[in-house]
This record gives sequence, C-alpha cells and structure tokens, in this order.
Amino acid sequence: MLRKEKRTDMRDNKIQIALLGLGTVGTGVYKVLESQKEEMLPKLGVELEVKKILVRNLEKAAAKVDRSLLTNNWQEIVEDEEIDIVIEVMGGMEPARTYMLEALRAGKNVVTANKDLIATDGKTLMDAAKEAQRDFFFEASVAGGIPIIRPLKQSLEGNHISEIVGIVNGTTNFILTKMTEENMEFDEALALATKLGYAEADPTADIEGLDAARKIAILASIAFNSRVTFSDVYTEGITKVTARDIRYAGEMGCVIKLVGVARSTQTGIEVSVHPMLIDSRHPLASVNDSYNAVFVHGDAVGDTMFYGRGAGELPTASAVVGDVFDIAKNMLYHCTGHVNCTCYKTIPVKKMDDIVSRYFMRLQVEDRPGVLAGVTSVFGNNNVSIEQFIQKRKEGTLAEIVVITEEVVERNFNDSLKILRTMSMIKEISAVIRVY
Amino acid sequence: MLRKEKRTDMRDNKIQIALLGLGTVGTGVYKVLESQKEEMLPKLGVELEVKKILVRNLEKAAAKVDRSLLTNNWQEIVEDEEIDIVIEVMGGMEPARTYMLEALRAGKNVVTANKDLIATDGKTLMDAAKEAQRDFFFEASVAGGIPIIRPLKQSLEGNHISEIVGIVNGTTNFILTKMTEENMEFDEALALATKLGYAEADPTADIEGLDAARKIAILASIAFNSRVTFSDVYTEGITKVTARDIRYAGEMGCVIKLVGVARSTQTGIEVSVHPMLIDSRHPLASVNDSYNAVFVHGDAVGDTMFYGRGAGELPTASAVVGDVFDIAKNMLYHCTGHVNCTCYKTIPVKKMDDIVSRYFMRLQVEDRPGVLAGVTSVFGNNNVSIEQFIQKRKEGTLAEIVVITEEVVERNFNDSLKILRTMSMIKEISAVIRVY
Repeated sequence: MLRKEKRTDMRDNKIQIALLGLGTVGTGVYKVLESQKEEMLPKLGVELEVKKILVRNLEKAAAKVDRSLLTNNWQEIVEDEEIDIVIEVMGGMEPARTYMLEALRAGKNVVTANKDLIATDGKTLMDAAKEAQRDFFFEASVAGGIPIIRPLKQSLEGNHISEIVGIVNGTTNFILTKMTEENMEFDEALALATKLGYAEADPTADIEGLDAARKIAILASIAFNSRVTFSDVYTEGITKVTARDIRYAGEMGCVIKLVGVARSTQTGIEVSVHPMLIDSRHPLASVNDSYNAVFVHGDAVGDTMFYGRGAGELPTASAVVGDVFDIAKNMLYHCTGHVNCTCYKTIPVKKMDDIVSRYFMRLQVEDRPGVLAGVTSVFGNNNVSIEQFIQKRKEGTLAEIVVITEEVVERNFNDSLKILRTMSMIKEISAVIRVY
Repeated sequence: MLRKEKRTDMRDNKIQIALLGLGTVGTGVYKVLESQKEEMLPKLGVELEVKKILVRNLEKAAAKVDRSLLTNNWQEIVEDEEIDIVIEVMGGMEPARTYMLEALRAGKNVVTANKDLIATDGKTLMDAAKEAQRDFFFEASVAGGIPIIRPLKQSLEGNHISEIVGIVNGTTNFILTKMTEENMEFDEALALATKLGYAEADPTADIEGLDAARKIAILASIAFNSRVTFSDVYTEGITKVTARDIRYAGEMGCVIKLVGVARSTQTGIEVSVHPMLIDSRHPLASVNDSYNAVFVHGDAVGDTMFYGRGAGELPTASAVVGDVFDIAKNMLYHCTGHVNCTCYKTIPVKKMDDIVSRYFMRLQVEDRPGVLAGVTSVFGNNNVSIEQFIQKRKEGTLAEIVVITEEVVERNFNDSLKILRTMSMIKEISAVIRVY
C-alpha cells in the first residue's frame, strides 16, 4: 500500500490563498470568503485568508479590495511558499493554463471555474495535479452554483450512468423561456437578454451552443469515465428556433429547450448540443428563465436532477468556495489528491450520423394532391418511419405540415432531408428539431 | 498541526465489507456492489468485497446470496480485523445503534441508511466516529438516492443556508399526486398506494409525517450547523387533506404537498412537517408520484433543488455505495474521519407558536348577514390580517368560504381558531393548511 508524501505543515493554523482575476466571479469569491470568515475555524479547523490577488489593472482593482492584496506579477504568487491554494477565475486559455500548471508543480492546490480549458485540455491539468498529489477542483466550471461534479464523482459513483441531459446555458434558457411565455421571436428575446445582462455583447458562444458543448463534454467525461473533449461534441444553437415551432411543440404537450445530451451506449458515447422538444411533464421542462438543471440517469439511482443558478457572481463563487473548503479539509488530513481524474476508460465517441433520434420537422409544401405521397415516399425509401403527419394550416397555394418521426438513424434522416431539399413541391424546410 | 494516526495497511489491496441486514436495501447494496465489481480497481485503486452478511434467518437469506457469506453472530463481524467497512441496513434503533458504536470503536468505518437513529441519536454515533477517526456516512438516510447530505456538507459549505423545503416522503407524495391528478379522496389514494407497494401495511409513519420529520431534522442539523432532533420537529400529516382542498388550491394556482420546512432566522431555527400550498410555478410543485426533492436556499448559491427517487432497493443502495466508495478512497489516503459532524453551533429551535406562516382555511358558515363580519372581527382582534376572502358555494342554509391570511404569527392564528370553533354561526372548520 502506497503511503502518500505529506505536505509541510501549515503556518499559524492558517491557509493562504491567491486569487487570479477579480472580475465578476473573482469578486464573488472574495465576497463569499469574507462572509464565511467567522465560520471557517469551527467549520474547517483552520482559517483561510486571501493573501494575493492577481489583476491586470491595479488601479481599477483597488476600487474593490485593499490595495495591498493586489499584484500584477504572477511570479510573486507562484514563488510564495505560504500560498497553498490558487483560485483561477481569469478565464480563457492562456495564461490561465500555464499559471495553473505552474501552481500545481509548485505544490499548490488549484480551484478553477474555467470550462473552456477543462473541456479542451483538462487531462493535462489533472495529470499535473495527480503528479503533484494536489487537489485540482472545478465544480464551478459546469452549471455554476449547482453541485453536479462532486455528486457525479462521489455520491453517484456506484452507478453506471447511461444518460445526462443538461440545460446548462442560462442565456439560451432565458431566451427560449421568453419565446415560450411571451411569444417573442428569437431576435426580440435575445435583445431583451442583452438588455438585462443575461447575454454578452457577443452572444455567439451562448446562442450557438458552444458554451453548453464545453459543459456537456466535462459532464460526459466524468459520468462515463472516458475523456470527451469540446471538439467531440456535435453542436447546434437556437438561432433557427421560431416562436411558431415553440407554439406547435406546445400543442403537442412539449417545450423546446437547448440541451446538452450525453449517452453511453454499447457502441460508444453519444454527445451533442441542440434544441430539443421535451415533454412538458419531464422535470427539465419546468426549468425556466436563466436557471440550469442537469438530469442524470443511473442504473441504480434511476432518474435524478440537479437544479439551480448556472451562472452569476455569487452562485459561481458558491461552487468555488465549496471546492476551496474541501481542499482545506484535505490539507488538514494530508490527503490532497485523493479525488482526481476518473477517466480510466477509452470509449469512442460516436459520429452524429450513427446516432438514433426522433425528429420534429416543419415544411411548407405545395397544396395539391400527390405532395404528401411524395414526401412520405422519400422517408420510406430512406428507412425513416413517420409517427405523425399533421397539416397545420394553408396560406395561398402553400400548406404547412409538421412531421414527427419515430426513432431513426440520423444518417437516414439527413439523406431524406437532402432529397427533400431538391424537390420543387417543397418550398421550404422551416424547422428540423430533435425530440426527446 | 495535528497529524492523524494512520490505519494499518490493507490486506492484498482489498477492502472487506460486512453488511448488516439483507432486506430490501441490503439486497440492493449487495446487487450494486456486484454490478460494480469490474469498476472498482480502476475507479478506486482497490477492490471491495462483501465478506460477511449479518441476518436473523440464515435459511431465508441463503435463497438470496451464497450461504458462506451469512452469519447470525455479530461478534464474528466486529471481531474480524479484516473487515474495515460495516454497512448497517437493518433499520430500527437497537441493536443497530450498539452494533454501529461497537464497529466504530473497533476501528471500522460505518455507512448507514438509518434515519430513525440519526435523527434521534446521531450525535452519539458521530462522536464515536470522530473519536475513532473513522468515517461515518449516512447519505441514504435522507431522500434515498438523491445526493443531498454530501452536497450540503461539501459543495454548498460556503453558504449560509437560510431555508430547506423538502418533499422527502414518497408515499405521501404519491397519495397527494393521485388526489390531485385523479381527484381521489385520501382513503382511496392510500388504498392504491398500499396495493402498489408504495405504502406499508402500517402507513402511520408516512401519512402522519413522522418519516419526513426524521429527514428534515437531519437536513436542518447539517444545513444550520446546529443539532436538530426528531423531537424538535412539529409534525402534521396529510390525513385531513381532501380532494376539495386540492381543487381549491388548484384554482388559486397552487398544489398541495407534504413538506418538511426548516428555516434559519435571527431568533432561532424553525422546523416542521405539514401539508402546504405551493405555487404551481415553484420547482417543488412539479415533483410528483413517489419522487422526492429537496429545495435549498443559500446566500451565495440562491435557489437550488435536488430531485430523484427517495426510496427503493436500488436508489437507496446507490447512496450507500457512494458512501462506501468514498470511504475506500479515504482509506487509501489514510484520511478517514476528515468529513465529520458539522454541528458546531447551538441554536435554539423555535416554538411553533412563534413562527410566522400564511394560512389557507376552509369554513362552512351560516349563510346570513353578519357572519362574515363576525369571522373577520375575530381575526382582526387577534392581529391576523386577511389577504383573500372567497365565497366558494352555497348548500342549503350553509355557505362555504375560503380564507387566505397574510403572514401571521401562529399563536395569533391559533387563538383566532379557538374562538371561531366556539361560534355557533360556524358549522365546521373543514381545512387549515399552511401556504408557502
């Protein structure tokens, strides 16, 4: 049995922290640590103190915290042997990645909220943490304040997880909620989200599903014990979803949500982000506004869901500080590094073409005999079974129809789509959305 | 800095387990451990093996597992130095309590699903675990498979938790769901629950709220860092709830749920179990059938909710095995005992009389002038403000009215009730239910 090398004892029963970044999350972390000052000693058996804060602009930061805490020199932090925990909340790939690697190699424990980095290069960081026998925690990188990484890594560890479906982007959930509840179109709802501060000036990463893709990659890696990276995730955003699609979904007893879906199947891992029709009675259906939720199915636990704020200063800080407190306890017991990378398998990620899905499709077709037969024969020739075929309305010489497929192989469905697009009787394929 | 005494090394890189009890949960635990056999070594770095199972009836148990595992002699287990983890799933107070204390004192780690014991005498067990520097985990004691104790103790530790509202009893949630969705009366829904195996032969502990009271006591203790025991919890069951109350609640945009409520206030802890009207848009409102959910509000994280199966063979086993795997990792890193009792405060539990609530009340009164004035003056004289006063229907000489109060001190409300009960113009007080 391997005995772990022990870290040096702490000075004055106090653990010193460095904070990298003092933006929204960094400020939140500082506030939450301040608000827990009285609790730390009885709760953890040790006090935690922010010793240094790395910022780019010293003047600007001095308006928020005591000037003496600030530095713009990373070396001052990484070379400070009194600092045992580094909290990275700068975001972005570099220099965050280099700083964290250097911190781990210098024997410091690291907490980060950096989903971009974990979803693309988490392995490098986790390997460095393992090598250094230090903690490397990133609860805040997925779904903000919602405890999901620790529950997956610990509480649900006795399960074979077969499915994760997450509403993990608050911006798009806010937009879709407004489109649903107030019948807004996408552009109007996005403008409102921007005005209220739910969407960034450049909303691409949110509305195109890239942010959600990073989070579902991280969740899939943990749930299936096999590395899934951002580039493995098929991604479709919500820009093409219309108020009419949402209304039709509602008539069918469904809502439309942007979800990250990860499934473990006999032939590999399926992982994707896209809008999806979800039955209104499903627990995810009532997750509205900017709230997030992660639905998990395990062979023992069955269905379970974790709900809460997926972003914001204090919710994200809540997750960061939970990690920091865990590290403090592990340091006291000399067992940092005992919860680490869980990707001990290498399972292939399936091509989207090989995945099985149900589809909702809305078409504008010529309103004349033979058209429906033409459409259905294309599906039939491509092994796509139709569950429902609904004529919604007529306008001039056009009819709007909605098609719901049974479970079909995506390749077959896409082949049908290609042919349908070439048919003159079909004026427009207005929507193609997957169904849960 | 205190260095912890280390346990002796494990034999053959294997951790041996004893299971106490082979009922529903015990069988589930055995199955889940079997299903994880292949995963243990890569996941934990060590294999786990059930070495002994304590049962009362050897013959009966031999139908389920290999006879050689069975014993009816506790000494055989507690004296076996190779056994490092004891899983108690016998239930009840004794001998479970004695066995767990003896196991901890013998240097074994303990996992239990025993809410009765934790809610009444958890302190004794946690003190023994601390003394022995062993892990004592009980995730399965609240809300079955839903990870809630570890998230509260770890992930949300950076919060001051102000409120927990839990639907933590599947039997009563099933009954109320049937009453809501199928307009059943209580007796009919209970009979159905019994028939389907959701209710026990003697359903008292469930329908009177005692089971929920145990769980909310445990959650309150952890959330507020101050011991709350079963006897501190004011408890009201669902036997008096009628289909008509549920229908009226629905008309007001609410559902009725049996909830455990725990709040941390300036003047102490409020903790109670009772039926409650909850707004249909609240995440708890869509928790139906036998599902459980725990809603938590923290100052940093905001609103968060944990949803899943609150009982059953495999969901409960999921929680037990999560605890067992955690212990295995802690053993490997020689840090058992590093997550322990968090009740470092002593906050008084408030008397129910001093709590502030809103109320829904349904009354049958004489249908004549002056009656409403009579009722309202009683409330007015007792500092009870009325938010709504709705006449629902008339039948013969009687009128049915529904009163919704504003937030009122329970003592004042109860004083009003006492007087109303003596008034001849009031034929019946048909329902008194709190409103969230």
